[in-house]
Amino acid sequence: MNRTTETSVTVIGLGLMGRALAAAFLKAGHATTVWNRTSSKAGPLVAEGARLAPTVGDAVKASPLTIICLTDYPAVRELLELLDASELAGTTLINLTSGDSAQARDTARWAGQRGARYLDGAIMAVPPAIGTAEAVILHSGPRPDFDAHKPVLDALGTATYLGEDPGLASLYDVAGLAMMWSVLNAWLQGTALVATAGVDAATYAPFARQLAAGVAEWLPGYAEQIDRGSFPAEVSALETDARAMEHLIAESEAAGVNAELPKLFKAMADRAIAAGHGGEQYPVLIEEFSRPGGD
Amino acid sequence: MNRTTETSVTVIGLGLMGRALAAAFLKAGHATTVWNRTSSKAGPLVAEGARLAPTVGDAVKASPLTIICLTDYPAVRELLELLDASELAGTTLINLTSGDSAQARDTARWAGQRGARYLDGAIMAVPPAIGTAEAVILHSGPRPDFDAHKPVLDALGTATYLGEDPGLASLYDVAGLAMMWSVLNAWLQGTALVATAGVDAATYAPFARQLAAGVAEWLPGYAEQIDRGSFPAEVSALETDARAMEHLIAESEAAGVNAELPKLFKAMADRAIAAGHGGEQYPVLIEEFSRPGGD
Repeated sequence: MNRTTETSVTVIGLGLMGRALAAAFLKAGHATTVWNRTSSKAGPLVAEGARLAPTVGDAVKASPLTIICLTDYPAVRELLELLDASELAGTTLINLTSGDSAQARDTARWAGQRGARYLDGAIMAVPPAIGTAEAVILHSGPRPDFDAHKPVLDALGTATYLGEDPGLASLYDVAGLAMMWSVLNAWLQGTALVATAGVDAATYAPFARQLAAGVAEWLPGYAEQIDRGSFPAEVSALETDARAMEHLIAESEAAGVNAELPKLFKAMADRAIAAGHGGEQYPVLIEEFSRPGGD
Repeated sequence: MNRTTETSVTVIGLGLMGRALAAAFLKAGHATTVWNRTSSKAGPLVAEGARLAPTVGDAVKASPLTIICLTDYPAVRELLELLDASELAGTTLINLTSGDSAQARDTARWAGQRGARYLDGAIMAVPPAIGTAEAVILHSGPRPDFDAHKPVLDALGTATYLGEDPGLASLYDVAGLAMMWSVLNAWLQGTALVATAGVDAATYAPFARQLAAGVAEWLPGYAEQIDRGSFPAEVSALETDARAMEHLIAESEAAGVNAELPKLFKAMADRAIAAGHGGEQYPVLIEEFSRPGGD
């Protein structure tokens, strides 16, 4: 149990997610060391073969790779401050704690100054999905460090590398959340609309699913317009969209359904039209999204 | 040219979309009669074999099925008022003009009172897509009338039947538009966020595409919660979403990116939490979407 191998790994933080991570490593046959402020949480993992380290320093020294999954970045920094240089030097830390890109970059700098290798990560999955391919885990930081540990990380799900900037995992994470809530909200808006004609949610859902997946297919092509900075109205012009938005607002209001979302869409489109982009295609709105707003 | 067959069809209104519809019928080998206020627009279609009717009444009498595609419902009604009962009785009208569900229901009632069969429709495609399976055309009204004409309608794209209520095509249409703009806006929000770390739109787009398609897969399962009116937090609780929304807002603001969309998401979630739904799952927000708001 005490033997560390090339594929040994340490997990610090045994909340719901941390326990799922450690369990997935154990299941994949990796020698797994765990540590938690409240050591009792380690019980079931120890029963499955994990080694409970007596101190954080011992936990980090037990493996070439340490996964950190705490409640927030201040908790991470508080814990890491307990370590001395000899414990940090040369080890690799992957911090999967939720936070923002500035915290990720700060922590990467802090770790680098102490000789530790550091990757920041974001888990785009719920704990029960950990250990399946469905669990996408984003990583950002030095590519060689990701590549070196990918065989171990594969035990957790689909390990994805984004780039050198340690803030990237956090940015992609929140960008992904924006997509998640957007699809869900649009589906709720549609569900509420068709419900006024007696259509149940189960009947409407496949239509919404097909449509979301269909629109998703346009994104790579639309992205080319953004990268070129040129938005010819190949499919339709923004002012045509704005008129159709009026329809959506009117239908929502007539049906007694919430119209806040369509009104925000329209307000943003109207600003772009007022800026002279009415004859261009929808992705020209990137200019509205790329500047502060909503204060 | 004057011969009407079982599969003859009439198209009224030769704007960009109307011309695409007539061309698709001709291409599929249907005897096609057309009419437009400005008859010169029919020129190219006549060259391809369409028959130009001298009057609206003649156009409607030429075929068992008439497709109407004008700029708006008032224009439709103005034109139909020109017809006498003998011209309307027994014929089938499919109105693909853009409008709202109330206009669709009114026009269905009006047509029914004059002995015409009536389906309302919505075209979820741009004119160049007409005639391909990609062009989804929604229909609502009496099922037997849809079934009777489906073989002809198949020439236009994927003819889809929604239900008896003639307002359904319009409701599904705007619901679909809400999904379209939502996916596009979420993608723009994410594109703007990752651009602050130097990531170009082409690099980010496949991630957004995969995520939208992935979330779309949840909808049928989430719909069951709505139909049951029970929202257990099987995956995550709304209050967890609300905390993650704070992250998205903070990242957007820190990056100098527009935060209006995430702030609206948060405002709606907060209202549901205030109403006591913080421990339930996201689809519980249907209650917020199903009541007026945004005035």
